[in-house]
Amino acid sequence: MNLNAVIEYGAVISAAIYGVLLAHRKGLDFVGVFAVAFVVSFGGGTLRDLFLDRTPLFWVANQHFAIMVFTLALAGTLFPRLAERLESWLAVPDALGLGLFTVMGTRYAMETDTPLFIAAILGVVTGAFGGVLGDVICNEIPRLFRPAPLYATCSFSGAWVYILTHRFLALPEDLCSLSAVITTVAFRLVAVKWAIQLPATGVPPEKG
Amino acid sequence: MNLNAVIEYGAVISAAIYGVLLAHRKGLDFVGVFAVAFVVSFGGGTLRDLFLDRTPLFWVANQHFAIMVFTLALAGTLFPRLAERLESWLAVPDALGLGLFTVMGTRYAMETDTPLFIAAILGVVTGAFGGVLGDVICNEIPRLFRPAPLYATCSFSGAWVYILTHRFLALPEDLCSLSAVITTVAFRLVAVKWAIQLPATGVPPEKG
Amino acid sequence: MNLNAVIEYGAVISAAIYGVLLAHRKGLDFVGVFAVAFVVSFGGGTLRDLFLDRTPLFWVANQHFAIMVFTLALAGTLFPRLAERLESWLAVPDALGLGLFTVMGTRYAMETDTPLFIAAILGVVTGAFGGVLGDVICNEIPRLFRPAPLYATCSFSGAWVYILTHRFLALPEDLCSLSAVITTVAFRLVAVKWAIQLPATGVPPEKG
Repeated sequence: MNLNAVIEYGAVISAAIYGVLLAHRKGLDFVGVFAVAFVVSFGGGTLRDLFLDRTPLFWVANQHFAIMVFTLALAGTLFPRLAERLESWLAVPDALGLGLFTVMGTRYAMETDTPLFIAAILGVVTGAFGGVLGDVICNEIPRLFRPAPLYATCSFSGAWVYILTHRFLALPEDLCSLSAVITTVAFRLVAVKWAIQLPATGVPPEKG
Repeated sequence: MNLNAVIEYGAVISAAIYGVLLAHRKGLDFVGVFAVAFVVSFGGGTLRDLFLDRTPLFWVANQHFAIMVFTLALAGTLFPRLAERLESWLAVPDALGLGLFTVMGTRYAMETDTPLFIAAILGVVTGAFGGVLGDVICNEIPRLFRPAPLYATCSFSGAWVYILTHRFLALPEDLCSLSAVITTVAFRLVAVKWAIQLPATGVPPEKG
Repeated sequence: MNLNAVIEYGAVISAAIYGVLLAHRKGLDFVGVFAVAFVVSFGGGTLRDLFLDRTPLFWVANQHFAIMVFTLALAGTLFPRLAERLESWLAVPDALGLGLFTVMGTRYAMETDTPLFIAAILGVVTGAFGGVLGDVICNEIPRLFRPAPLYATCSFSGAWVYILTHRFLALPEDLCSLSAVITTVAFRLVAVKWAIQLPATGVPPEKG
């Protein structure tokens, strides 16, 4: 319970910091910084809750999350260099956030008897689509889709670890979550470290 | 009731005209003009209703709004110069629309026992996010986020006026609404008149 | 029943292929290809279901659709030239998909006593907005909005054929659906063949 809360806040915090940095790069004002941080932090979970018709939304029911994001956006606006400096330390909390959000998404989906493949997809949506929405409102092709170190793939793998350990091995809930988070985080850190990425597709322009 | 309806239609009309002008600048055809006007007029309220799980959506239950937007898009397409000429007159209905949508969003949120900070956020979403979605589908960084005269800030202030007068001063409903609308509209008009805006954030490129 | 299923799968398949081709042109990797194909295939129906508060979402309840899109994205990534070659054959299934999705959207809306104009709008949203969302996440102004052969207009016409035959002529359900699909498909194919399009709006820049 307690560990869960710690990681949950860590996930929102790392997502918010990613959003603040993204907004800085675009030269937005405080409203823009807060809006982007908000969308990155809550976008994935909101899509999941809307798709599963879970109410109330997690950030509507509990305003601590939104106040935290507001505070981070304010701090990032007042101390822009501090935020820039944090960027190089982001890989670990970012990976943790990806892992935890993925597990939460997959678990919530399975609780409502969603088919397994869809549960894995919703894990990825929860883990990775906040960043996609943030990129979209900043008018960028989402980094998730461009060739870059594996991200959604790590989330998808973690989601399946949760599904397999929970449904087919029937391990205790906490052990399933922990295995899935560790898989996602380790896979993501390895992908970042060795720049593992999927090849780009598409026929080169001169041949198309 | 009657005054409410007048302002409500005014809000939708001013949002639709903003959408028509935005679509014109992009050289879209009638379908594009209608789609953008539709998204700008109904986007903020739709997000609010989805987040609060209110059904049916206000524009699904009452087709007068959609027919009105359709008619405005048609008129704007047939008489493009008329729409252009209206642009300079837009500040007042635009500010009125912002104020009214903000109050509606905040009030609906409070009716469902949403935490106060979230209620204020949902007021801003209702008031300002139609324009954000319109900009996104037109492939622009939302004007809301770029340095420009205060917009979301006015909405946020108005939302808090409603919350404070309603929850803590327990004033009559109509008086709360009126105070919040006046605050938002006056603040917005002052911001436009004197070009009050928040500073842009971000470390300049040559130093980053 | 059986015919319905055949066309339904055809609609999803053609939408997925459109998404795969769109992602290829942007040079995305497999994750991007799958995500875009997913959004194009399920985006319109998802918006409709959220707006009408229908649960569970069609692709959440039935994972066959998602697995099909996954397989097509994988095939399109492994055999990019095959996908490119299919492009010129897409007009017919694309028009069929538009027609069928339109009828499904309109029918579902009417089942919940939605006003008729809104039912037609939701038919268009279901038929055409998957492509809009796909364009948005690929950072393009939606092709739906740019001057191009009629698309939403065909869908809107088909929706009204369904509404008129069903509500006012009280024809049998299947006959209404068939008339609407045929209207949409024929109208769309004619528009593509003779490049029928709506004029662009907007005052030319040198005069604005």
